[in-house]
This record gives sequence, C-alpha cells and structure tokens, in this order.
Amino acid sequence: MIVLAKVLVLNGPNLNLLGIREPGVYGQTTLEQINGQLALLAGELGLTLEFFQSNHEGQLIDRIHQCVLTVDGILFNPGAYTHYSLAIRDAIAAVNLPCVEVHLSNIHAREDFRRQSVIAPACVGQITGLGADSYFLGLRALAAKLG
Amino acid sequence: MIVLAKVLVLNGPNLNLLGIREPGVYGQTTLEQINGQLALLAGELGLTLEFFQSNHEGQLIDRIHQCVLTVDGILFNPGAYTHYSLAIRDAIAAVNLPCVEVHLSNIHAREDFRRQSVIAPACVGQITGLGADSYFLGLRALAAKLG
Amino acid sequence: MIVLAKVLVLNGPNLNLLGIREPGVYGQTTLEQINGQLALLAGELGLTLEFFQSNHEGQLIDRIHQCVLTVDGILFNPGAYTHYSLAIRDAIAAVNLPCVEVHLSNIHAREDFRRQSVIAPACVGQITGLGADSYFLGLRALAAKLG
Amino acid sequence: MIVLAKVLVLNGPNLNLLGIREPGVYGQTTLEQINGQLALLAGELGLTLEFFQSNHEGQLIDRIHQCVLTVDGILFNPGAYTHYSLAIRDAIAAVNLPCVEVHLSNIHAREDFRRQSVIAPACVGQITGLGADSYFLGLRALAAKLG
Amino acid sequence: MIVLAKVLVLNGPNLNLLGIREPGVYGQTTLEQINGQLALLAGELGLTLEFFQSNHEGQLIDRIHQCVLTVDGILFNPGAYTHYSLAIRDAIAAVNLPCVEVHLSNIHAREDFRRQSVIAPACVGQITGLGADSYFLGLRALAAKLG
Amino acid sequence: MIVLAKVLVLNGPNLNLLGIREPGVYGQTTLEQINGQLALLAGELGLTLEFFQSNHEGQLIDRIHQCVLTVDGILFNPGAYTHYSLAIRDAIAAVNLPCVEVHLSNIHAREDFRRQSVIAPACVGQITGLGADSYFLGLRALAAKLG
Amino acid sequence: MIVLAKVLVLNGPNLNLLGIREPGVYGQTTLEQINGQLALLAGELGLTLEFFQSNHEGQLIDRIHQCVLTVDGILFNPGAYTHYSLAIRDAIAAVNLPCVEVHLSNIHAREDFRRQSVIAPACVGQITGLGADSYFLGLRALAAKLG
Amino acid sequence: MIVLAKVLVLNGPNLNLLGIREPGVYGQTTLEQINGQLALLAGELGLTLEFFQSNHEGQLIDRIHQCVLTVDGILFNPGAYTHYSLAIRDAIAAVNLPCVEVHLSNIHAREDFRRQSVIAPACVGQITGLGADSYFLGLRALAAKLG
Amino acid sequence: MIVLAKVLVLNGPNLNLLGIREPGVYGQTTLEQINGQLALLAGELGLTLEFFQSNHEGQLIDRIHQCVLTVDGILFNPGAYTHYSLAIRDAIAAVNLPCVEVHLSNIHAREDFRRQSVIAPACVGQITGLGADSYFLGLRALAAKLG
Amino acid sequence: MIVLAKVLVLNGPNLNLLGIREPGVYGQTTLEQINGQLALLAGELGLTLEFFQSNHEGQLIDRIHQCVLTVDGILFNPGAYTHYSLAIRDAIAAVNLPCVEVHLSNIHAREDFRRQSVIAPACVGQITGLGADSYFLGLRALAAKLG
Amino acid sequence: MIVLAKVLVLNGPNLNLLGIREPGVYGQTTLEQINGQLALLAGELGLTLEFFQSNHEGQLIDRIHQCVLTVDGILFNPGAYTHYSLAIRDAIAAVNLPCVEVHLSNIHAREDFRRQSVIAPACVGQITGLGADSYFLGLRALAAKLG
Amino acid sequence: MIVLAKVLVLNGPNLNLLGIREPGVYGQTTLEQINGQLALLAGELGLTLEFFQSNHEGQLIDRIHQCVLTVDGILFNPGAYTHYSLAIRDAIAAVNLPCVEVHLSNIHAREDFRRQSVIAPACVGQITGLGADSYFLGLRALAAKLG
Repeated sequence: MIVLAKVLVLNGPNLNLLGIREPGVYGQTTLEQINGQLALLAGELGLTLEFFQSNHEGQLIDRIHQCVLTVDGILFNPGAYTHYSLAIRDAIAAVNLPCVEVHLSNIHAREDFRRQSVIAPACVGQITGLGADSYFLGLRALAAKLG
Repeated sequence: MIVLAKVLVLNGPNLNLLGIREPGVYGQTTLEQINGQLALLAGELGLTLEFFQSNHEGQLIDRIHQCVLTVDGILFNPGAYTHYSLAIRDAIAAVNLPCVEVHLSNIHAREDFRRQSVIAPACVGQITGLGADSYFLGLRALAAKLG
Repeated sequence: MIVLAKVLVLNGPNLNLLGIREPGVYGQTTLEQINGQLALLAGELGLTLEFFQSNHEGQLIDRIHQCVLTVDGILFNPGAYTHYSLAIRDAIAAVNLPCVEVHLSNIHAREDFRRQSVIAPACVGQITGLGADSYFLGLRALAAKLG
Repeated sequence: MIVLAKVLVLNGPNLNLLGIREPGVYGQTTLEQINGQLALLAGELGLTLEFFQSNHEGQLIDRIHQCVLTVDGILFNPGAYTHYSLAIRDAIAAVNLPCVEVHLSNIHAREDFRRQSVIAPACVGQITGLGADSYFLGLRALAAKLG
Repeated sequence: MIVLAKVLVLNGPNLNLLGIREPGVYGQTTLEQINGQLALLAGELGLTLEFFQSNHEGQLIDRIHQCVLTVDGILFNPGAYTHYSLAIRDAIAAVNLPCVEVHLSNIHAREDFRRQSVIAPACVGQITGLGADSYFLGLRALAAKLG
Repeated sequence: MIVLAKVLVLNGPNLNLLGIREPGVYGQTTLEQINGQLALLAGELGLTLEFFQSNHEGQLIDRIHQCVLTVDGILFNPGAYTHYSLAIRDAIAAVNLPCVEVHLSNIHAREDFRRQSVIAPACVGQITGLGADSYFLGLRALAAKLG
Repeated sequence: MIVLAKVLVLNGPNLNLLGIREPGVYGQTTLEQINGQLALLAGELGLTLEFFQSNHEGQLIDRIHQCVLTVDGILFNPGAYTHYSLAIRDAIAAVNLPCVEVHLSNIHAREDFRRQSVIAPACVGQITGLGADSYFLGLRALAAKLG
Repeated sequence: MIVLAKVLVLNGPNLNLLGIREPGVYGQTTLEQINGQLALLAGELGLTLEFFQSNHEGQLIDRIHQCVLTVDGILFNPGAYTHYSLAIRDAIAAVNLPCVEVHLSNIHAREDFRRQSVIAPACVGQITGLGADSYFLGLRALAAKLG
Repeated sequence: MIVLAKVLVLNGPNLNLLGIREPGVYGQTTLEQINGQLALLAGELGLTLEFFQSNHEGQLIDRIHQCVLTVDGILFNPGAYTHYSLAIRDAIAAVNLPCVEVHLSNIHAREDFRRQSVIAPACVGQITGLGADSYFLGLRALAAKLG
Repeated sequence: MIVLAKVLVLNGPNLNLLGIREPGVYGQTTLEQINGQLALLAGELGLTLEFFQSNHEGQLIDRIHQCVLTVDGILFNPGAYTHYSLAIRDAIAAVNLPCVEVHLSNIHAREDFRRQSVIAPACVGQITGLGADSYFLGLRALAAKLG
Repeated sequence: MIVLAKVLVLNGPNLNLLGIREPGVYGQTTLEQINGQLALLAGELGLTLEFFQSNHEGQLIDRIHQCVLTVDGILFNPGAYTHYSLAIRDAIAAVNLPCVEVHLSNIHAREDFRRQSVIAPACVGQITGLGADSYFLGLRALAAKLG
Repeated sequence: MIVLAKVLVLNGPNLNLLGIREPGVYGQTTLEQINGQLALLAGELGLTLEFFQSNHEGQLIDRIHQCVLTVDGILFNPGAYTHYSLAIRDAIAAVNLPCVEVHLSNIHAREDFRRQSVIAPACVGQITGLGADSYFLGLRALAAKLG
C-alpha cells in the first residue's frame, strides 16, 4: 500500500475574493478554480491535498498547528499577513514542516511595505509574481521535497 | 419607491469599552450612545445604517467582505489596527466601496506610532480628533458621496 | 442680543488657484465657491466668518496672531506648509484657539512627504480627502466646539 | 471571610505547543505543567488563578476585557504579538489592571525584531529569559502588587 | 508679426548678494551681470525675459502664479528654498509651465542637505555646478522647449 | 513548421563554482548538471535553450541586449548582482522580455543585504530557496508565459 | 570720538507674543521688556542696538542683508525657523557677521524636532534655556567679540 | 559540609542615591534597605551574598572580573550603563557566569533610549519595572539557576 | 597652428539601446544621432570629440584613465552606474579633468534610488531631464570651461 | 551674616589639556586661567566656587553626588561625555540642582555626533561656541538663577 | 624539496594610477614599486607572489576563482569595490582561502561611505591607513597564516 | 648616543582576561605572552616599550595624556571602548601622536555594533582580525612611522 504525501493549501486574508475583485491586479481566476487545478496537479504528482482559507490570523495559526502528524508540507499564500504576522512565522517554525510561500503578484514591484516577508525566513522558499502558476510551481516544489 | 443608501458603521478593537474606560482620553460617551446619535443623523440624511464592532481583525475583514452588494459605504474606526493591519487595508481596497476612517482622539498629537494609518490610503478620507463628532461628520461625508 | 461665534477661514499657499489648476487632483470648485458655500453653512450654524488666503508663511502667522480676542476658532487648510512650517504650528499653539485642519485631497494616499502634518499636533482635529466637504465638515466641527 | 485576589494567566500564540515543539529554544516543560506549578504557587501566595491561551489576537483582547471586575491582575506571555499587537496593548491599558509581561526566552539575545515589546509600556513590568521561572516570578510580582 | 516666447528669470533667497558675498563659493559675477548676459543671449535665442528676485517664499509663489497666461517658461534658481519649500514646488506644478532649475555651485559636492531638491520633481530639468553658465544653458534649454 | 520559443538561461557571478564550492549552502549539483536537466525539461516543455554565465556585470548586460529578436524569455540567477546592479535591472527593463529571477538559497533567511533584489521589479516573478528546483520551476513559469 | 559697535537684536516668528501667550513655557516677560533691558545693558557694555521682529522668513533675510556695513553683530532668536530655514542660515553666512543664536526655553528638553538648529552652524555660538537671560548673555558675548 | 552558592549583588551608577533622590520615579526604599532584604531572602534561599556599588564603569568591570572562581552568579542593576556600556557587556560574557539584569522602573515606558539594553544579550534574563521586587525576583531566579 | 580642445563623450550601460527601447522614457533619438549632432556642435564650438560607450564598469574606468594627456574634458552619461559606481567616481577624481554629468530623463522625478548620484561630487556639474539637449548643453559647458 | 551661593565648576575629559593642545580648535587659554577668571567673576557676582576636573566618568558622577547639600549650582563642560554619558545625565537629574552646560567650541558646526547632547535635557540651559566666554556667561546665568 | 607558499597580490580599480595621481591622498609610490618591495619581502618570508590588477569587477572575480588549487592566500586592495561589490565578497568566500584586505589610506577618516567594507566579513583581517606598509604588513600576516 | 623611540602598548577593557576567557573567539595567548613577544620584536625594531592595561576609560585617557613628551607612538587595542568612547578619541587627537588601533578578532565579521570604530578617525591606521599578529604588525607599522 502506498501512502501519498499530503499537502495543506493554505490561503490568508482576502484571497477568498480572488477572481471577483481587482482582477487587474490579481487576475480573473477564482480561488476555487486554482484549488481545482491544484487538485488535478496533485493527482499527477502523487500528492493529496487539503484546503483552508481564512481571514483570521488566529485560525491560520490553529490550522498550521493541526498539520503536525497530519500533513507533510504546506503551500501558503499568507496575503497581507506576509508583511507583519510574526505569530504565523513562529507557527510555521514550530511545526517544522516544509512550507513554500507563494504570491500571485510580484510583491517586489509594488509598494515598499510589500517587499518584505516576515514569514519567508521560516519557509523553504518563496515564489512570487507568476499568478496562479505561483501555486502550481509551489506544489511541484513541495512534491520534489516530499518525493 | 426610494431605496435609501446603506452605510456600515464599523468599529475595531477596544471601542466596545468606549465611555467606560479612559474617559480622559476617549470621552464619556459610549459606543451605543454614538450609534444611537448616528441612527438619528442617518434618518436626517436619508441613510440606513448597520452596526458592527469586533476586536478580531479577521471578523472585521469578513464583515467588510460582506459589504459587497449589501452596503454602499463604510464609516470605520479601526482602533489600533489603524497602524498595522495591512490585511484590513487590502479588504477595503478589495470591496471598492467608499470608506471614511474616523478617530475620536487626535492621533497626530499622541505617540509617534499612532501618527501613521496604513488603512488611510485605501479610504476616501480621514477625520480625527473631534470626539464623537468625528463619526457624525464622517457619516455626513458618506451621505454626500452617496447622495 | 446674541453674539455669534466667529470663525476665520484660513487658506495657505496655492489654494487661490483652486478650481483653475489641476482640477484632476483638487476638483473644479474655486476657493470663492467654497467660501460662498461656507458662508451659507455658517448662517445655518449660527456662525460668522472671516476669510483669508495667502501664499506667505509670515502673513498666515500674522493673521493667526490677529485672531486673539477677535475670532473664536480657525478652519485652516495650510497647503504645503502642512509638512514643514513649524512656525505656523507655534502660532496656532500660541493663540490657543480651536483650529481644525482640512485638506481637499487624501494626503495619506499621495507622496510620502504629504503623509505627515507638523501642524496637526497643535490642532483639535484634521479632516482629509473629502474635497470641499472637508471644509464644510470642518466648519460643523468648529460649530460644535463653539456651540 | 477572606477573598483571595484572582490572577488571569494569559498565553498568546504558539504557546499551546510549549514543550512539544522546539524544546531547544523553549524548553521541555509543557504549558499544562507550567500552569500546574503556577496553581501550586498561587496556593502558597494566597491567589486564585484562571487560565486562558489563544492564538487569536481578538480572543486575547476579548479575554482581557472580561477581566474588568472579575480579575485583579494579569500574568501575560503575549508570544509573537509582543512585537506588533498595538490592539492588545490598548486593551491592557483600557482595563487598567496590573499586568506583568513574561517571556521564556531572552528576547534580547535573539533576532532584532524580538527586542522590542509594544505591549510592555502598558504593563507594570517585564520578566524575560528565565524559562518557566519567568512565569513563577511574574506571579510572585503580582502577588506583591495585590498583597 | 512674430510673438517672442517669454521667460521669467526667477531667483530665490540671498541671490541678490551674488558677486558681493562669498565669491569663493559663488563667483564674482553679480546677479545684474548675469541678467545682462541672459538678456543678450535671449536676443540671440528669440526670447524675451522678465526678471524677479525675492528672499520671500510667498513672493516667489505669487510671482510664479502670475506666470499663468503671461509667461511661457521659467528659469529658476530657488536658492536654499530648493531643499524644503514644498509650497514653491506645488506652485510650479500648479502653473504647469516648463521650469528649469539652476544652481551656480555643484550642490552634490557640498553638505548632505544640499543634495536633495524638493522642487526638481516639478521641473523639466536641473543644471548644477556650472557657475553663471548654469543660467545660460538653462535659458538655451527653455528656448529649445519653447522653440 | 513549428517554431519553438527560446529561453536564455543566464547565470551571474560565482555560479560557475556551483557544486564545487560551499556545497553546504548551495548544494552539490554543478551548473552543468542543472543546465543538462534544464535542457531535458525544455524538451518536454517545447522550448529551446541558450546558456550563458559570466562574472562580469557588463557581459551580462551585453548578453541581455542580444536577446532582442533572438530570445523569448530569460531565466536568470543574478548571483550577488541581485542586490546592487541597477544597470542589469535597466537592461532587463530595456529588452522588455519576460524574465524570471531564481535563487538556489532562501535569500530571505540569510544576511539582511540579501533580502532585497533591485532586479526583481523588472522581472515578472522570483523563485527562491528551492535549490536546483528554483531553475526548473522558473523554466516552467516561462513556458507557461510563452505558451 | 568713539564709535560704538552696533548690534541688531533680531527676533523671529511668534516672539511678538512673548509674555502674553503660553507664559508657562516662555515666561511672563514681554519682548518689549526684554528689549528695554537689553538697551540698558547695551549702555553698560558700550554698544548701540537696533531691534527687529518679524514672522516673515523673507523679512528676516532682508533685514540680515541690510546689516552689511551698518551693523557689527547680530543677536538672534530665530523661533521655529531655527529648525528648517536654510535660507536664513545662508543669509547669516553671506553677511559674515558674528551672530549669537539665543532661545528662551531649553530646546534640548522639548520635542525631538526642536533639538536641531540648521542655523547654528552659521553662528558663532548658541545660548539656550535661560529665559530672558539667554538674550542678556548673548549680548555680553557679542560685546566681548566686538570689544 | 554544605557550600552555599554565592551571588554578587552589583549596582551601577546613581543607585547609591536610591530612596533619597527622585522617590517619585524610583521609590523610597534605599539601596541599603534593599540589600538588607536581599540578605534575608538569600538566607531563605540558601545563598550567600556580596554587595558592590560603583558609579565607575571600570570598577564595575574590575569587580565582574573578580567573580571568576569566587562567585556563582550576578544580580546586576547596571543603571544608565545599561544603554551603552559594551565594555560591561563584554565583561559579563567573559566571566561566563549567570547574570540577571534588573531594573526598578519599567524602562520600556520611559524615554526611547532607555528601551534598549546592550547588556541584556550577555545575561540569562532581565526583570524590569517591579521596584525592589525586581531584585528579589532576580535573586530567586539565580537561586533556581544555581540550585 | 591652433590645437583644438578634445572632449570624450562617454556613455554608460544601456545607452547603446537609446531610441530603440523605451522611447516613452528616453525619447526616440538614437545615440548615433546624438553623437552626430554633438559632432556638429563641436565644430561650432571649436572642439574635437571622441566617442565611447560601454556596458562594462571596468571598460569605462579604463577609458577614463586613458584620458590623461589625451583628452581635455569628459561629457558623461553614466547610466545606472550613476547610483552606485564608486569606482567610476574615483576614476574621474583620479584623472582630474573637468567632467560634466548628463542625464536624458529628470532623475529627480523617478524612483528614489535614481535621485542620488555618487559620481556627481567628482564632476564639475550635472545636467538632467532635458533629453538630448542635456548632452548639447553639457558640451557647451565644457567648451566654456576649456575655452 | 550673608551666605554666598556656591557653584561647582566641573570639567570633563581632556579639558585639563586646554590651551596646550589643539589651540586652533579650543583656544590658547588654559583651564587654570579660565578658573582664575571665573574666580574673579564669582567675586563680582557674590558667588563662591569649587573646581573639579576629571577624565573619569565615575569621578564626575561621584563629584556631582557630593553636591547635594554642599553646592547650589553646577557649571559643567562635560567634554566628549556630552554625547553619550547617560549616567552623568542621570546624576545631574538625581541631585536636582541647576546645571548650565557649556562648550568652548560651536559643537553645532563640527562632526554630526557632536551636535547632540544627552546631558542637556537634565540641565537648565546650554551655552556653546563662545570660547572661555561660554564659562563666564554660564556663571552669570547661574548667579541669576541663584540670586 | 621545499614548496613555497604562493600569494596572489590583487589590486582593484584605479590602483594602477598609484603614485601618479592624487599623491596627496595616496602617496607617491607606484604600484610597481610596491610590488617590487613586496617581492623582496616575499623572498625574506619564504613566499612566492603573483600580481594582478584590474579595474573590472568581473576580472577580479575570475582571477579569484583561478586561485583554487594554485594559490595559498590573497593580499587584496579592492579599491572602491570595497564598499559595494558583494560579488567579490562571494568570490572570496567561495574559494575559501585566507585573504587579507589592505587599504593605503585610513578609510575610517574619510567620507562616510568609505567606512564600511562589504568584503571584510569574508576576509581574515583588514589593515588600513598605513600607506604601502599596509601591503607589507598584510604580506607578513599571510606568511604567518601560511607558515 | 642613540635614543630609541618609545611606544606605549595600551590595552582597554577585558583584555587582561586574554587567553583565559573565550579562547574560541580571542585565542589562547595571554596578554602577558603578547607583551613578551612585543618586547622581543621591539628589540629587533629598535624600539622601547611601555605597557598599560585598564578597564577604566578615565585611566586610559589619563595614560594617553601622559604620553606627551614621554612616548613617540601608541599601539592601542581599545576593546569595547572602540565603539563608543568619544572621550578616548579626543584624547588621542589631543596628544597628536601616531596611534595604530589593533583588534584580535575581525570586528567586521561580528555583530553590527562592532563594525564601527569611533576611535579610528583619530588614528593613523587600523589592523583587525589577525590575532596576536595584529599587535606585532601594528608595532612594525609604528616602527616604520617613527624610523
């Protein structure tokens, strides 16, 4: 019997509005569509996925804590918490699982405050600016880590 | 049939304690009293109001998201989230509704960290230092915007 | 005999060009039109008004000094002096009258240097971003203070 | 009849994982063990205790608000919120109870961002770096304050 | 009939002392001599000139405002106002005429505070360090713009 | 006849030593091995590749210029030039081709100066911390852009 | 015949209100009283005095320029211009006369922005915090310089 | 025979004036009284104490050096040296003994420069704001370390 | 026999793409066209010219070194090296020839990092924002210096 | 019987070398000569003086402490301790006596680090740049305070 | 057979002009003379030397790479690259050979930007300010390391 | 009769513990051993030596003052005073003798605060990172200066 590695696809604040609001900045694909495509890709890569989105910093931390013993890696778009949530950073460091941080937009070409991620030092890597592909490539990175 | 414009009166952390605690800084009027006076003023101005207060950043974001299609403008005192909640800022930008930021105290005459609002760039305007009048004037500003 | 409270409507540099220049940023209403509307509103609110505009920092200070014993409050758009005129700030502090600082544009959504007001700490409050309404609401705030 | 003073033992984000995760940094004692030892010490000191831990900034604020009239002091490890939660700081200032901030690790010997506490100015004191003893000493400090 | 383009030669604080004071830094040519040479060069270039110097920020702003409809370009040495007069910057932006900022000395090789011009972003260009030639080249630049 | 899109694989200073030096930080794979694997992946993705590595900022700029009309996208690890070569940034902006910036190590978890990329604002995206996978994922991102 | 040295007593913005406004900070002595006492002291010291006060930066500069050939030294309280008027600094440097900067209050014990004088580098010395005595001692300092 | 652990109670500049000067900030207890109470507590905790106070940075360093082989731990209030004496910090690091830094006042609620301790990174922990209790709790912390 | 003064026209990185790429920012004129016009102007001004462009910092330094004894002045657009090449700055200082720095665009109205030139302190002057005229005026400035 | 007020003339590091070393910066008068002249002036002013100079921060603090009950005011040139000795600042604040800070040179016209005094906020005033006159005027200021 | 250790004497930009240009700052000795003296000293110390100078950052990096297996230590004056060439720093770290950084002038007594070396953290030591002796002492240091 | 030049070997705080404490950072050689080796080297170089070590800033300053007329140069390891003792810097500048600053460790590869020396600008040069060799090379540098 083969046990597939499991990845939590975690999305932070305002990403539930994806595809509906500000398509000029974030594209027209909805989070559901991205998740659907991630599920297909996971099948190819031999991974199973769980999905969670929340606008609540605390819920994101709780969910990260639940990863211990249940999940093998995290694909994470922290939204605006990227720039100040040291509590989320500590949560990722605490569970000690490979986490890939992804961003739809090129955060390095926007406002100054978006150029720094307080979460990235606790992650294995970061992928930015490639739209929905940031997620797909992030999942591939985790598949390689967990393979 | 006339449809009245609707405004969400949104209050952030610690504003539920208004009038009870630190009256020297924030005055003796309670949030309920302010809301009551806002309701009266809304009647004069031809607006209907909804009220929401929370100490939870995530609940404030959720509530802002619910404004889409249900509310025409937001009157918002973000409390201390004013100074660091980029997630709330993004929520306001995402729903694309006119939002007026209000503060009871003159944040420019207090500690340095209170002088900057990370939320203000996503709002149409900001009113500070006028006590409960900051709310009343903010509602008038929204009435003018929505008139 | 009722003595009406008197408010000085004070405008700083370049505001004499209002409505004529850069209507995209500052709107098409002229300062004269705003002053006219303020006069009407003052009537409603039981206030009398004086008007003064100058591009000269020194004239603004002189005019603020003259407020002592002759004026009960100041409605003030300091223009670009907002960001560096410590001399005007000291003048307002010296005359010890309620002053409401107003700005047509949302100074928090423009260049970094426009986000700080050195004058605001000497004022009772600040209203920004609401176009001509910033003035009208500011006058209401003063009426409430002086009522 | 003697009424014992009551202290809320409040723990912030990721402290629920204490003893389980990163024992190299935070030690092997669990939060439950610390709470048990605090309870014993409280008995000695003539105090009663309540315990609350949350990863949610909003829940921490709500719980602090509930202290009014029900609790006499707060023993608080704010976790990573130490460094940015101005909303929690305002909550502590609002309830106006003696609060002692504690940290297991020596935050002054770690990353730069951990050296500043935005919450400390609203507390009566801070104890850092002494492992579980930070809590025990903090409780003694409150006992002395409330004695 | 040919209508010649008109340029205002505008000089800020302390430039009336040119040639008399501190010749080591600013050279021995007086402002009158420079203006005379500019007049000759204007003749060659098919331009007419007006001249104005003031030590008063407000008079400089007033004079810039008068350029609307009467002048086609501005040749401007703002003196020390270069480094802080946001009010003059706004005046130049408001009148929307091509302005060339000139400096006699190489401001980049002097004190740190002289290296930044708050006015330059509102100008089409800046010429520094070439003594009286900064003016002559600036006039040529305007002639080319207005040609 | 199908014309395959062409991608330049560009590597900056010290990357020629990859796999030989400091394997603890940068891994044991050589640049030749990465290039070989990229070539295989390019075949799968329907891309052709060119390879260039240089320690010379000027040669990197020259090579970027040659991309005009000959190459459809750039996969770029700028090495330490990431942090200061504004000239390379301008070169990428000038040729106006999609460029994906990649880094083997997690630059966000190293020295402070490595956290900022002056080149990223001219790129479509950035992938960091995933070892050789950063390259492979970057090529996939370009394939998607050019597909 | 003995020619007495002449000193200009120069006062900047808001000092005309001295003694009338904010006596808690600036004392109850008026500027006229200080000037009277200075005149008496000048007699003792063998100096003649001229007096000038203005709220206008430009008038202060003009007045400083007039000192050339007519005055031997300047006793100067620049008020709030102390902190930003580079134009006044240049004026003092240009006339090349000994200038002593004086302040009534201890500017080093007030707001941060009051701790720096941009004018002091062009003066021979600075006297702060000694109330009206700052002026009297400043005059003595000039008498010694000019003796 | 039981050998009791020995602790040096070390006090830096101005602490000899404790209880006599500025009782509003530092309380009315003298250093002698604190030392007396520490001696009693040491008896309870099974520790012996030595006491040393100096206003001289060099004497404090000398005394710390003497701790090698003679003392088991240090209870240290560095006074104002807290904020700049890197030499004392190095001395503590050199002798490699557990040191607990204590402060009577809440240094985090005072001037900005008092918020940083250059000495804390060389200590095991820091206790601030609890008046004389800071010392007593610090001694308990050392007893636990040395137990 | 008359010996004409010789000027090196030196261009830094990416300027070889002038007129071809990003004409919106840099105009449509090519470097060849500018050089042709400079040659004509040189004839008028009695100068001879040499031309050199390189994207290589080292080649620019080498070329500047060769100016010793062969060239009388340098007209230099350092491109992006303007903002960080201290090595080029030292080269210009070393050869001790008059150098005029020119920029096509108004570097003061672009990104913050473009506002500072590390090279300017080693030049006699700087001309910015005037398109190709920046070069022509710069050549005139050198002609005047060398005349 | 008349009791004369007593002033301590306190000098910090390197001032013992006055007049001998670096006369270009600090003048040719020795500290003994200044003290002699101060003694004469004290006679005129009805003051008695004590003198103390030390290069040791700790000795200066000790000496300041001894002022309690024995001295009525302090005339203090802290030398380089001006810029970092927070311990001396606290000593002056602790003894609560009027202290006038004096400097021979104009510290505002020298290196940046000399422009800030950490001691000045604890003094009543500061006199800089007037050579030995800084001391004489400082003594007069104290005489006026103590008169 | 004795194999002598080999040291590369590496010089960065503008050092080829040594002795010819700016002798006031850098002395009159040429690089050739220094190299000659180094060769003599190497003989005494039992070392063999190679010499390389380049103004090209890339060539310096290439040359450092070639040191692997061929050279035992590097004596390096990086010239102005000292202050920004992170690529050279990485090259030195990569080859993992002892490198001593030398400077002719005292970089700590010059412009602020010359006080920081980005290369020094990758070197074993740094010698500055001793003219040609910096090189000679640096060679001795390497001889000791390689002895 | 030949008079040998005399050099003071001066060591600052904590260097008396050399070789005993933290050998991992500072090596196992004691200060006595270094001094012994320096004495031997001095013999070779034709110098005589004096030795002084103190942890007291004031004693170091006193000792530097005594160098006038008795010593020809100073070899100085200021320990942690390197980073803040402006008083020592002024002492070195005052005695006007050649001083070479030495450090055992590479201060540029340690904590940020160790990278800046406030003393270096008053020295002729600085040698860091070469262990005891830093002293030996420093003595050679002085011998060359004094030769």
